[in-house]
Amino acid sequence: MFGHRKVLQFEARPDKPDPLFAKMLQEPLGGQWGEISVMMTYLFQGWSCRGPQKYRDMLLDIGTEEIGHVEMLATMIARLLESSPVEAQEDAAKDSLVGAVMGGARIEDAILAGMNPQHLIVAGSGPRPADSAGNPWTAGYMCASGNLLADFRFNLTAESQGRLQVARLYNMTQDEGVRRMLAFLLARDTMHQNQWLAAIRELEEDGLESTPVPSAFPQELEKTDVSYLYVAGSEGGVSTTGRWASGVSADGRGEIRSVPLEPLTSDQGLLSPVDPRTYGTPPAPVPAEAAE
Amino acid sequence: MFGHRKVLQFEARPDKPDPLFAKMLQEPLGGQWGEISVMMTYLFQGWSCRGPQKYRDMLLDIGTEEIGHVEMLATMIARLLESSPVEAQEDAAKDSLVGAVMGGARIEDAILAGMNPQHLIVAGSGPRPADSAGNPWTAGYMCASGNLLADFRFNLTAESQGRLQVARLYNMTQDEGVRRMLAFLLARDTMHQNQWLAAIRELEEDGLESTPVPSAFPQELEKTDVSYLYVAGSEGGVSTTGRWASGVSADGRGEIRSVPLEPLTSDQGLLSPVDPRTYGTPPAPVPAEAAE
Amino acid sequence: MFGHRKVLQFEARPDKPDPLFAKMLQEPLGGQWGEISVMMTYLFQGWSCRGPQKYRDMLLDIGTEEIGHVEMLATMIARLLESSPVEAQEDAAKDSLVGAVMGGARIEDAILAGMNPQHLIVAGSGPRPADSAGNPWTAGYMCASGNLLADFRFNLTAESQGRLQVARLYNMTQDEGVRRMLAFLLARDTMHQNQWLAAIRELEEDGLESTPVPSAFPQELEKTDVSYLYVAGSEGGVSTTGRWASGVSADGRGEIRSVPLEPLTSDQGLLSPVDPRTYGTPPAPVPAEAAE
Amino acid sequence: MFGHRKVLQFEARPDKPDPLFAKMLQEPLGGQWGEISVMMTYLFQGWSCRGPQKYRDMLLDIGTEEIGHVEMLATMIARLLESSPVEAQEDAAKDSLVGAVMGGARIEDAILAGMNPQHLIVAGSGPRPADSAGNPWTAGYMCASGNLLADFRFNLTAESQGRLQVARLYNMTQDEGVRRMLAFLLARDTMHQNQWLAAIRELEEDGLESTPVPSAFPQELEKTDVSYLYVAGSEGGVSTTGRWASGVSADGRGEIRSVPLEPLTSDQGLLSPVDPRTYGTPPAPVPAEAAE
Amino acid sequence: MFGHRKVLQFEARPDKPDPLFAKMLQEPLGGQWGEISVMMTYLFQGWSCRGPQKYRDMLLDIGTEEIGHVEMLATMIARLLESSPVEAQEDAAKDSLVGAVMGGARIEDAILAGMNPQHLIVAGSGPRPADSAGNPWTAGYMCASGNLLADFRFNLTAESQGRLQVARLYNMTQDEGVRRMLAFLLARDTMHQNQWLAAIRELEEDGLESTPVPSAFPQELEKTDVSYLYVAGSEGGVSTTGRWASGVSADGRGEIRSVPLEPLTSDQGLLSPVDPRTYGTPPAPVPAEAAE
Amino acid sequence: MFGHRKVLQFEARPDKPDPLFAKMLQEPLGGQWGEISVMMTYLFQGWSCRGPQKYRDMLLDIGTEEIGHVEMLATMIARLLESSPVEAQEDAAKDSLVGAVMGGARIEDAILAGMNPQHLIVAGSGPRPADSAGNPWTAGYMCASGNLLADFRFNLTAESQGRLQVARLYNMTQDEGVRRMLAFLLARDTMHQNQWLAAIRELEEDGLESTPVPSAFPQELEKTDVSYLYVAGSEGGVSTTGRWASGVSADGRGEIRSVPLEPLTSDQGLLSPVDPRTYGTPPAPVPAEAAE
Repeated sequence: MFGHRKVLQFEARPDKPDPLFAKMLQEPLGGQWGEISVMMTYLFQGWSCRGPQKYRDMLLDIGTEEIGHVEMLATMIARLLESSPVEAQEDAAKDSLVGAVMGGARIEDAILAGMNPQHLIVAGSGPRPADSAGNPWTAGYMCASGNLLADFRFNLTAESQGRLQVARLYNMTQDEGVRRMLAFLLARDTMHQNQWLAAIRELEEDGLESTPVPSAFPQELEKTDVSYLYVAGSEGGVSTTGRWASGVSADGRGEIRSVPLEPLTSDQGLLSPVDPRTYGTPPAPVPAEAAE
Repeated sequence: MFGHRKVLQFEARPDKPDPLFAKMLQEPLGGQWGEISVMMTYLFQGWSCRGPQKYRDMLLDIGTEEIGHVEMLATMIARLLESSPVEAQEDAAKDSLVGAVMGGARIEDAILAGMNPQHLIVAGSGPRPADSAGNPWTAGYMCASGNLLADFRFNLTAESQGRLQVARLYNMTQDEGVRRMLAFLLARDTMHQNQWLAAIRELEEDGLESTPVPSAFPQELEKTDVSYLYVAGSEGGVSTTGRWASGVSADGRGEIRSVPLEPLTSDQGLLSPVDPRTYGTPPAPVPAEAAE
Repeated sequence: MFGHRKVLQFEARPDKPDPLFAKMLQEPLGGQWGEISVMMTYLFQGWSCRGPQKYRDMLLDIGTEEIGHVEMLATMIARLLESSPVEAQEDAAKDSLVGAVMGGARIEDAILAGMNPQHLIVAGSGPRPADSAGNPWTAGYMCASGNLLADFRFNLTAESQGRLQVARLYNMTQDEGVRRMLAFLLARDTMHQNQWLAAIRELEEDGLESTPVPSAFPQELEKTDVSYLYVAGSEGGVSTTGRWASGVSADGRGEIRSVPLEPLTSDQGLLSPVDPRTYGTPPAPVPAEAAE
Repeated sequence: MFGHRKVLQFEARPDKPDPLFAKMLQEPLGGQWGEISVMMTYLFQGWSCRGPQKYRDMLLDIGTEEIGHVEMLATMIARLLESSPVEAQEDAAKDSLVGAVMGGARIEDAILAGMNPQHLIVAGSGPRPADSAGNPWTAGYMCASGNLLADFRFNLTAESQGRLQVARLYNMTQDEGVRRMLAFLLARDTMHQNQWLAAIRELEEDGLESTPVPSAFPQELEKTDVSYLYVAGSEGGVSTTGRWASGVSADGRGEIRSVPLEPLTSDQGLLSPVDPRTYGTPPAPVPAEAAE
Repeated sequence: MFGHRKVLQFEARPDKPDPLFAKMLQEPLGGQWGEISVMMTYLFQGWSCRGPQKYRDMLLDIGTEEIGHVEMLATMIARLLESSPVEAQEDAAKDSLVGAVMGGARIEDAILAGMNPQHLIVAGSGPRPADSAGNPWTAGYMCASGNLLADFRFNLTAESQGRLQVARLYNMTQDEGVRRMLAFLLARDTMHQNQWLAAIRELEEDGLESTPVPSAFPQELEKTDVSYLYVAGSEGGVSTTGRWASGVSADGRGEIRSVPLEPLTSDQGLLSPVDPRTYGTPPAPVPAEAAE
Repeated sequence: MFGHRKVLQFEARPDKPDPLFAKMLQEPLGGQWGEISVMMTYLFQGWSCRGPQKYRDMLLDIGTEEIGHVEMLATMIARLLESSPVEAQEDAAKDSLVGAVMGGARIEDAILAGMNPQHLIVAGSGPRPADSAGNPWTAGYMCASGNLLADFRFNLTAESQGRLQVARLYNMTQDEGVRRMLAFLLARDTMHQNQWLAAIRELEEDGLESTPVPSAFPQELEKTDVSYLYVAGSEGGVSTTGRWASGVSADGRGEIRSVPLEPLTSDQGLLSPVDPRTYGTPPAPVPAEAAE
């Protein structure tokens, strides 16, 4: 069960409105690697957790914090879409084309210059549950498999992609208020990358899971002669100079060898003739009598 | 540029048809973590790579191999949807309800029992570019960011989720031909998990990237007082017993402390009154004269 | 900012596992009118609210409660997918085909009978962020416009469609534990329908908004001669016997008349010839020299 | 069965081309609350109607009118994308940046300034079945449940959101021809809001449906002690000052009380250990022998 | 502008209910090649037509007929989902598993056997705007480019894929009432395939368009030395035995030659080093000072 | 099985960067009719082919070539997003607004002017698997039915729509390097339109398939009295002046007649009363006792 406190976790107040940056900021809100994705991912992983309770509680801890990050970004975007006081506008006008658009221009000119039109038409100067290109958020972005190592690797990815995007956005604005909030999010993503690295190590030391995931599958059932084989599908030899192409494997269980990509079968993938009731094209003409 | 050899990388021949397992096998073909996802991901990462060539070539190597895995799964599904010879059917009929459905039953009864209807109606006994629930594959599943560490972490995730799903599917069938191919895929996923772990280590040792991603962003610009803080958003103390809540951080740059989730601001997130031209609800009644 | 208490709002424990009902129960979790939709809708409406604070706080109140409903449904689905103790299975086996499937059958037979395959392959016996047909949840289902009357009408709809679906599901199961939780959800939906009706009345009495939405748009600017006209687009007279076809309009501002559907213009919608650089088909042949 | 008359219901002719407003106008054509959504919704509700014929016929009446509204918007967008005569361009050039773009500029500069690129590349100066951000229309926007009160509430919402968006668009253009058509649509939306309010009242007076929807579900089966309880999920008391928090309920069947959000159970949502064949993470290490 | 007649174009009455066939029949209603797709495609092509009026009117003719086909399929599905009279049930019970499900079984058993759960939970025994796998219809299926030859080829495809699917469905049911309607749709698809073939010939004879589409693009601007070259991307020589690999080209403008797939450039596709502000991985380590 | 050569099929090097044209060029990469669509379509058709091997091999030939076209477009887009050398920028600045944006402007101004924001934020100056409006590629665009004539008609459409879009793009840029690559793609599309026309003729002459598709369905089972009837759904006579409205049908099997659109039944599409357990609206009030 959840509760709400009527205050943000961290301040979300821009120095001045900026409808174009509002569009950009939709990416960490509603994009593939945005806060909605991590919020939903961590909560679903927590609710699905059948492992030790410390992992379940930790997942719900961080998922709960992320709801508050969604709240901060939604608030920031709403404020970036507000009409600004006169002074701010004048300042803005001097600075950049963005400012010029806001400073006194008619509404259609602001749109003209690249706003997300749905910020005005659909949301009335509010945030959208969508990414910076306007695609609505979809649960196809999230992940909860029941296997914690597989999922923690996803989580580490999400915090890496997320921090990367926020760092790029940091360079796209000069607004100190926006940068303050981005600096907060960057720091939390630093913590969260560390958190998932720690959780991965703990899971392995607890003996619950290891590489290759899922470790409970008996490895002797896989086709072991290709388990530690680097297959060079491209011509040229540069790709075999990395540690993925020779030496002891990362899981410590094998010795990696490098081979060219060659077929291990003579199976050409040819199919049987079609069931005539499906009206697929047969190898040779058939009389028109397939229907019963 | 690509070439095609008219032979599969590994045999994809079931012992007998099984339209229900054909439906299941759509997941590793066209699901979020299926072969189309990794094929497209590795190729796009390779084509976008601005780092050392050994990484680019390696990405294109593995992407090229994955096209062949898509081919194997597509072929296997097409064969699972074929009409079987009489003996196989009789065998099947003894074994399971699946067999019973195939053994002489009318086409609508097979559907009745849970087939993917599009295997018949849309594809005429062929594979679908979709997952086991029938959702078409979408590029929203894939990932190519230009930052190799962020992307290799995604790749490691994909091979972990992928091997997990194939392991589950291995337990859902008794067909030896199908299991042979799954054993091959499991082994390749073992290699590929090892491959991405090795590539991550190499990238770090090359000094190109480290935790927190992106490492080229000056960490002093983030709000450093919350960079190594475990925030307990849930009540109870179980979640702070892991190594994510105390001790040296995984990146070796900080000492982790644990604190309860508390606001760091008094900002309540309240917004300014609305621009009347957007017809949002204002704090107090306004006269109806907003249009120009 | 949000907090989490490590207890559910209401018990979510089925009497026995039922993987098929787990599939059905995805609809009120991740469907168009499910709990994720109302959770996200109320939170975004709250974060976007520029009207009186009582509405904003109320939206965040109910949005916060809904996160807990998502939690209850996710937990219930996870438990419906668990292996059951022997006794429960034997009981189940007597009752229904569902029971038969669970009682001793091999895993592939359960799937055969109609389970959502992703419950096993993707989520490992956990809930999915998807509807009963397996479509992932999308933010295209939600709504936050900045106009509270428009949005409260959406909310009233969501609680009506939602309660309707839960009532249908109540009739599809005999499991007392499941029915207890559905009875709780039905009661909350009763409250929430009443809540939105009350909020609509309050908004109108506060003078903030009325029919037609948005009331701040000067109605004299619309084409007033068709503002209270019932247009009969179908043949036959039955459709004009309702109160929508005559009498005082619901907003009290007009007298409704009924007319047949007739064009109000002679504009045939014909278009100008195409710009040759777009290579659309022109009214008459043109020489092939359009490219610069 | 449908027929077509070769004339529009109302004129759809802009004073001059405006490719940027063409992009905006996609929202009421192909957006969540656009004309395609209401056309499809009303027709499907009509075709699914099992209630009195007057409702069915009325739904098909209005659905048929809406096909004509789709036609008007599609025509208007096609004309906004046409090349303009010289005079119009010169006029436009004086007025606004939009005009400047059209008046003599090369094709790439018009795109540069914010057009929907698919208007040129995909549709060759024609309308798109998509919204103002370019998302293709999806049937996930529409609604037909078989319960007329639930559906009429959806319809009232759709006409409210739709009129709100058209009112916003009215303020974004100065083109008198465009405004004439928008004024027509605004007036029809006024009628249609009134129409659904009237239909809701009629349905209730006919005794076919009432709050809470669905009224045919025996209310004593729901958990009645929480049916009229306002639950304050947020801290602070402002949200309980509305009529949703005390007094007689809108359905006249209950007395509303306000309580803080508290759990009604001690159920912590913990799950049973995982079936080892799904390779989820267990509470304690297990030997690798799960596969059969 | 459109009108509605309160009668179907052709009878849509099954002999008896069949909820499983109702699920199958969603494909020609709301699938990629279903009636909604052709209805929307022909109407949008008509509204976008800038060529001779005979094509525009013909497109609107057939688009209007297709709205009626959507109506027939929606009605048929609603009736297939009805409860059947006793006799029909008894008959059915003898025939098939489908019958057994309907004849006296509890509602959950019908679902169990493979129904689309949304037919009950969401639509209350009505049709869904979705395909046979439950995916909602999307405008991503339709096509209107402004070039009539390109579009007529799409239309010919749609009628071919559509008739193929209906023919497959004809073989999946024994219900004479359903087959009567399918026989009607098959005949109309026969006409419509002929119609688009005729329209293509007329367009070519009118001199408005020819192969290669778009014919108004000056062919000398393309890289003409590869315009009539069959490129064998696979090994082996079987693929060059068709008329696509030698002889006069279908457009009569070239002589086709066959060559192996070889690169025509030495461009390896290598990219420049990354802009440091995007934090992509560089070819060599860079100091962490990229942010401004 | 596939192999990769480390060289492009044709050069993909622009004269100078152009981030706006990079956005446009996403359409032929990841749009409905882009190279990903044809690559996936041809490969799936090849892997599903149960007809003569020459068709299967030809499909895999062309599918393999198309992977290389995806590679070329991805590379071109990555290069259009690179920072340009000073001279190129100065040149550009003189030429156009696009140049002005690139020549010295800050990063946010480039975005302002209409870039795809995901090119920077998500892909770090790399290509996206999406169209020019930012919609991710979806397998809903592709087609593989098992019937080769139906599928070759789709392929002919795809090459026509594709060449049309590339021709439009050719006119939107002055960059000679970009135009060289587009000229190559235009030429290949010329070949591929010819190729599918040839394959269609061969398929018909081989006696494997003819109009109406599927020809193996016994035509006497369709409702033959409407098989060659042009139905004029619109008023007016212009639409019947084409060869689709009279004369011998294209398949040579019928004589086309033209008739007005009239119902062939008295079926009004009315439905039976609803099953009370679904809580749909009944024709008359029912007591609230439907639940068991």
